[in-house]
Amino acid sequence: MDYYSSQISNLIEELARLPGIGQKTAQRLAFHIINMPEDQVESLSASMISARKNIHYCKCCYTLTDGDLCPICTSDKRNHGIIMVVENTRDLAAYEKTGKYEGIYHVLHGAISPMLGIGPADIRLKELLVRLQGEVEEVIIATNSTLEGEATAMYISKLVKPTGIKVTRIASGVPVGGDLEYIDEVTLLRALDGRVEL
Amino acid sequence: MDYYSSQISNLIEELARLPGIGQKTAQRLAFHIINMPEDQVESLSASMISARKNIHYCKCCYTLTDGDLCPICTSDKRNHGIIMVVENTRDLAAYEKTGKYEGIYHVLHGAISPMLGIGPADIRLKELLVRLQGEVEEVIIATNSTLEGEATAMYISKLVKPTGIKVTRIASGVPVGGDLEYIDEVTLLRALDGRVEL
Repeated sequence: MDYYSSQISNLIEELARLPGIGQKTAQRLAFHIINMPEDQVESLSASMISARKNIHYCKCCYTLTDGDLCPICTSDKRNHGIIMVVENTRDLAAYEKTGKYEGIYHVLHGAISPMLGIGPADIRLKELLVRLQGEVEEVIIATNSTLEGEATAMYISKLVKPTGIKVTRIASGVPVGGDLEYIDEVTLLRALDGRVEL
Repeated sequence: MDYYSSQISNLIEELARLPGIGQKTAQRLAFHIINMPEDQVESLSASMISARKNIHYCKCCYTLTDGDLCPICTSDKRNHGIIMVVENTRDLAAYEKTGKYEGIYHVLHGAISPMLGIGPADIRLKELLVRLQGEVEEVIIATNSTLEGEATAMYISKLVKPTGIKVTRIASGVPVGGDLEYIDEVTLLRALDGRVEL
């Protein structure tokens, strides 16, 4: 790419390494960045560096945060007796956006996947068991509804049950607004199995 | 978004301001950046700042470059008598990728568009006329095949013709590998009008 100056080529290459950013998008982003006001470029770049430097795992729930504990774990408005187990921070964010969940979280950072060689020791399961020694009423398993997520849910439920703590799994079924015609058979059967009385 | 720490929220917000990057993509990028090796984050961020600081327009063809003149304008392997007029630097890059064009360029940075209030004075047309006072054999108009691109092409050809310099327009027709069945009628008629003898 010697028809660009080396600085543009460098920037395009670096941007193209980000996930989901191909060569074309990287090129468009690079030209945009070059035309951005200088202070905006500096602030974007400073945000990146400071986030990378200061963000680490919450010592309690293992979400990403800049303090020792995350805002959710330190909040006294949350019910610390209910722990929702999620696969990653984005899943936590998805439930937080609903604004209705009052408990706290535990982020596993992955799911058990024999195919990818990820075993129970590779995700934050040991840390979950340590937390269960405190005063916990309920563990809500909110791993994804994928093969790996389901396997992880089964594994966790087997681990937790002997402690006597209530273990629940989020419901799976037809999504709200979903048209039955377009929904796969496994989901339809799940929805039937999970039917509730009106 | 107070369920993320403020540094993550900041980073997501800044990333979401880039073109084509929505909230979800910004979130994914932010988490990726937080997990990247620290030196990679620093190098990406330095590339952004240095590109923004040092890149400006080539004094001859108005593409983006870090020197006074771009590598193409300074190359003695190119034919400086042929100028291809393009709308923007990405179009220049597209032709450079073919590796077959030997002339030089002129980047307009836009196209005439009465709808958007962009007139001939708002793009780099005056600068093109100045260049035509040198030794130029041919001006190839390679603006896009859109309404604005065609209008700009017509305008340029009217400007250049009185100087006696040869003016050409890149061919429009069926794209290579294109299936006639799926091609719009205007393109089909253009391809017919532009037919060449075999």
